[in-house]
Amino acid sequence: MARRLAYLGPPGTFTEEAALLYDNTAQLVPFPSVSAVAMAVDSGMADEGVVAIENSIEGSVTDTLDILIHESRAVIRKELVLPIEHQLLAKPGTDASTVRIIFSHPQALAQCRRFIERCFPKADVVAALSNAAAVEEMMASSQPAVAIGTKRAAHLYGAHILAKGIQDRASNVTRFVVLALQDHPPTGCDKTSLCFSFAEDRPGVLCSVLQEFADRNINLAKVESRPSKESLGQYIFLVDLEGHRDDPLVSEALAGVRKKTAMLKILGSYPKYNGK
Amino acid sequence: MARRLAYLGPPGTFTEEAALLYDNTAQLVPFPSVSAVAMAVDSGMADEGVVAIENSIEGSVTDTLDILIHESRAVIRKELVLPIEHQLLAKPGTDASTVRIIFSHPQALAQCRRFIERCFPKADVVAALSNAAAVEEMMASSQPAVAIGTKRAAHLYGAHILAKGIQDRASNVTRFVVLALQDHPPTGCDKTSLCFSFAEDRPGVLCSVLQEFADRNINLAKVESRPSKESLGQYIFLVDLEGHRDDPLVSEALAGVRKKTAMLKILGSYPKYNGK
Repeated sequence: MARRLAYLGPPGTFTEEAALLYDNTAQLVPFPSVSAVAMAVDSGMADEGVVAIENSIEGSVTDTLDILIHESRAVIRKELVLPIEHQLLAKPGTDASTVRIIFSHPQALAQCRRFIERCFPKADVVAALSNAAAVEEMMASSQPAVAIGTKRAAHLYGAHILAKGIQDRASNVTRFVVLALQDHPPTGCDKTSLCFSFAEDRPGVLCSVLQEFADRNINLAKVESRPSKESLGQYIFLVDLEGHRDDPLVSEALAGVRKKTAMLKILGSYPKYNGK
Repeated sequence: MARRLAYLGPPGTFTEEAALLYDNTAQLVPFPSVSAVAMAVDSGMADEGVVAIENSIEGSVTDTLDILIHESRAVIRKELVLPIEHQLLAKPGTDASTVRIIFSHPQALAQCRRFIERCFPKADVVAALSNAAAVEEMMASSQPAVAIGTKRAAHLYGAHILAKGIQDRASNVTRFVVLALQDHPPTGCDKTSLCFSFAEDRPGVLCSVLQEFADRNINLAKVESRPSKESLGQYIFLVDLEGHRDDPLVSEALAGVRKKTAMLKILGSYPKYNGK
């Protein structure tokens, strides 16, 4: 039976592209939110789920981080990195000079701001809930309009591609993760994601945790913080490190971190993405 | 002459509420983006500017961080913390049971998800570009609709408040900052914001910078990272610390940090918010 792969839909999003890249033989099941994808994995409704976790320009997808920290027992089993290429889509036969409305998800718009300001300085922007919804709404619009969307959305909704690669920065990539109930066995070239917090806020506590990794020459791929959601100024720290949680030095460092923190959650060990 | 205070508009946003709280004698000038507010300050078009920088639930306003890091020479002169209370607004006389459309900024919707899912499980959500735009669009809608908005927007647009305080968490506050060309002189109870990056990614570099503060017993109110925007995995770190950049120990620590980093930018010293 084909693997049931949940993803943040609707069809036509970048997440669907990532899910197809990961496994194009799977049965793809769209869900309306990151939280719903995680819940589908937690409950067994899906075998695995694909969600975006970080963009090279916008930074972390905080929704995904917060759900991994607070809500879900799913862990990261794999990471995938996808180039993000925004296209300008319109109904076939649309004359770009008559366009007065641009449909776009706010994040896509932020990534294409320069193009839009130069080419459509007077157009009204209408916010959509996803890159795919932007295209769907543009196709239904009674006025001349364009949408910022994916190649796949153009194909799905029968839109014409007016312009390709309209994002401001060419080096725009998004990191997606595959969530599952078990993470990945060691491969020799792995990453581990974890989060932790402290009972009290004293000078040097974060530093003393990071020292556990530095002392063992473990490289940190990422350090960031998220609000605890309890009160302003209380944070949960997230770390991505190079190595598997079963590697002896990593395992030793994590034991040290556990003693120094009030909460420690391992979000999964998985092969480092190498472009395949 | 009244101080010209730029803020992220339109009128009716939480940022306008923060600007009024900061100085209700100022001449308030709405701008369409955080970038435009910063540019107004940089160029002298406004004396000061008010923008949101962090929410206790959603985390940092990454737009604001990125503009302070990369674009603007404005610095933080003051911080303000405002409770965020979302209201459910409708046209006078609207019957809640007939409502099928909800207008909302995506972030406001995320903060009121539980209320919306329980009370309006079948309504369609229409995304708006700001909390104020959501109310304006709701008032113009031909179908029975509600909007998530502020008290001030209800007043400005003549909307009726159907429900108050509909956010999922009561402890929802946002930190705003006042930007100016010069930061604040020392008051004895200050904070300093800074950002830095490294030329190369080696185990322990971040830790060695944080040690400069720990060694001098300087408490860090916040540590986070933002993508450098050059490539995935290259970060700029942001730190808020307790103290003024002119305090002897802070100044000494900053000199130490400067030697260990490829880039260091002080984003301003300002009085720590104490509720007044």
